[in-house]
Amino acid sequence: MTAFGDLEYAVGLDVGGTKTEGVVVDGEGTVLASLVRATPYGASAVVEASSAMVTELLADSGVGLVPNRPVGVGIPGLVDVRSGTVKHAVNLGIDGEWLALAEQLSARLDHPVVIENDVNVAALGTTPLLPSGRARDLAYLSIGTGLAAGLVLDGRLRRGVHGAAGEVGHLAVDPTGVRCSCGQRGCLETVGSGSAIEAAWPSTDEAGPAVSLFRAADAGDPQAVEIVRRFAGAVATTIRVLCLTVDVESVVVGGGVTQVGDPLLRALRAELEAQAEGSAFLSSLDLGERVLLVPVGYPAAAVGAALLGRAEVTP
Amino acid sequence: MTAFGDLEYAVGLDVGGTKTEGVVVDGEGTVLASLVRATPYGASAVVEASSAMVTELLADSGVGLVPNRPVGVGIPGLVDVRSGTVKHAVNLGIDGEWLALAEQLSARLDHPVVIENDVNVAALGTTPLLPSGRARDLAYLSIGTGLAAGLVLDGRLRRGVHGAAGEVGHLAVDPTGVRCSCGQRGCLETVGSGSAIEAAWPSTDEAGPAVSLFRAADAGDPQAVEIVRRFAGAVATTIRVLCLTVDVESVVVGGGVTQVGDPLLRALRAELEAQAEGSAFLSSLDLGERVLLVPVGYPAAAVGAALLGRAEVTP
Repeated sequence: MTAFGDLEYAVGLDVGGTKTEGVVVDGEGTVLASLVRATPYGASAVVEASSAMVTELLADSGVGLVPNRPVGVGIPGLVDVRSGTVKHAVNLGIDGEWLALAEQLSARLDHPVVIENDVNVAALGTTPLLPSGRARDLAYLSIGTGLAAGLVLDGRLRRGVHGAAGEVGHLAVDPTGVRCSCGQRGCLETVGSGSAIEAAWPSTDEAGPAVSLFRAADAGDPQAVEIVRRFAGAVATTIRVLCLTVDVESVVVGGGVTQVGDPLLRALRAELEAQAEGSAFLSSLDLGERVLLVPVGYPAAAVGAALLGRAEVTP
Repeated sequence: MTAFGDLEYAVGLDVGGTKTEGVVVDGEGTVLASLVRATPYGASAVVEASSAMVTELLADSGVGLVPNRPVGVGIPGLVDVRSGTVKHAVNLGIDGEWLALAEQLSARLDHPVVIENDVNVAALGTTPLLPSGRARDLAYLSIGTGLAAGLVLDGRLRRGVHGAAGEVGHLAVDPTGVRCSCGQRGCLETVGSGSAIEAAWPSTDEAGPAVSLFRAADAGDPQAVEIVRRFAGAVATTIRVLCLTVDVESVVVGGGVTQVGDPLLRALRAELEAQAEGSAFLSSLDLGERVLLVPVGYPAAAVGAALLGRAEVTP
């Protein structure tokens, strides 16, 4: 018997570039307890802090770990889910060699640990937000530093044969566009991401560049209006790519830029409708109606990490 | 005991705009018998001819229909798989009202019938072509009159929530491009399809415009070289869209244009490599290596139709 009765519950961590979020969720993915801490720098510090957070979450909740529910961890960078290792999580100070995160954390906790990239776990973590009929089939579109999607198709997380499923931000659409960090030119990410907004609308506003940009556009600043239009156009194109390829029921938009809230949703829907004008085919797909925003503050990646241990996954 | 021993076998038809192909396959999808006939015009003639072809295939093979293996039919147009009805198969003279194809054919054969759109069945039908390790995960890219994909993800046919999975040919990439039949401007299909080749390279050559175009390009005709480059560029973009969205192991190219054979494969791989130049990320995905052509004459859609009755399908 635990503080949560005999509910099935699990622990998930989202180890991000600046902060780490941890949650305890029940069998439906409802958050029962949560914690946020600054992420320390360097491989061993990350392992240490992750272990400490799990211990603290369990103490706060008065529960122990459930045998068949591994602790899940979402982390940026290149994640090898089979070996439980991670590389190229540059902001965390994890680079060069593969870090055996699952193994090291598992040894400290004396409990199984599974890891997955942050966008994929966030996709899983949005499923509890949706009505049950829509929760088995969605694309989660993360608009933060980058632009990337996670796919849950017919209830199963799609990783891709080379782990590249959802890398739609690196579709190059403009040969005259700016150089992308991936080496291509004119990727959707170079226009439809938080860093693209920051580059186009540098702002010292406390609310951040995205909120500042949308406020200025709302106030009629013509330059801001044009930047919003280009940004929303690139994101809308990404949504069309997702829907014309896998035709998911919902596209759930998350990431830092969602702090903008309703004005973002309105801008995306307006662009999707504008793109569909004159095409009965595209209009019939109702793309605008499929778009939702993750509520500000909802720990999608941590919840998804907690759900990871019993999620169905595919290549 | 049948002519094929106690093998599990099934019957599939591919009802196309000009011809109908029918096959009997075994449990592995190997073709045991096949027939090709001109497709008649009009709803009742199509039902009649389909029924006659099944009867003829069974007589030729000396087998009867297996109770748990429905006859499968692939057909162009708008297909409602649940009700077994089809509409907008304009080339077949099926338009205006929904034709209850499955029900009418089933009544004539006294056997269950399932139907599916022609691109999706062709995707299923390419799985027996691949080594078993690669056969569960592929995109079939049909380059014929149009440009569309069928997806088999982790062994299951992906239809899409609105039946629009794989409609990548209607991604509009060029606002200055020509008007597409779907109402948009500059869709990938307006450059990367058999009809686009026919429009750009009208030819009375018996081999057809695509073969004629590639031959002229090979002989150094600068206009043909440029048309091939644009065509291959659009198809390569479509392949990037598929691989960066679902990251399938194989992209199997079929449809009328594959009559071109090896020069087509070389042109696609060259474009994929050119697009990946300068991007370590894109190069690492080895997109060129994932592309295969359906062998000329292989009845992919008819085989897939035969496999449909026991295929796992998803929204």
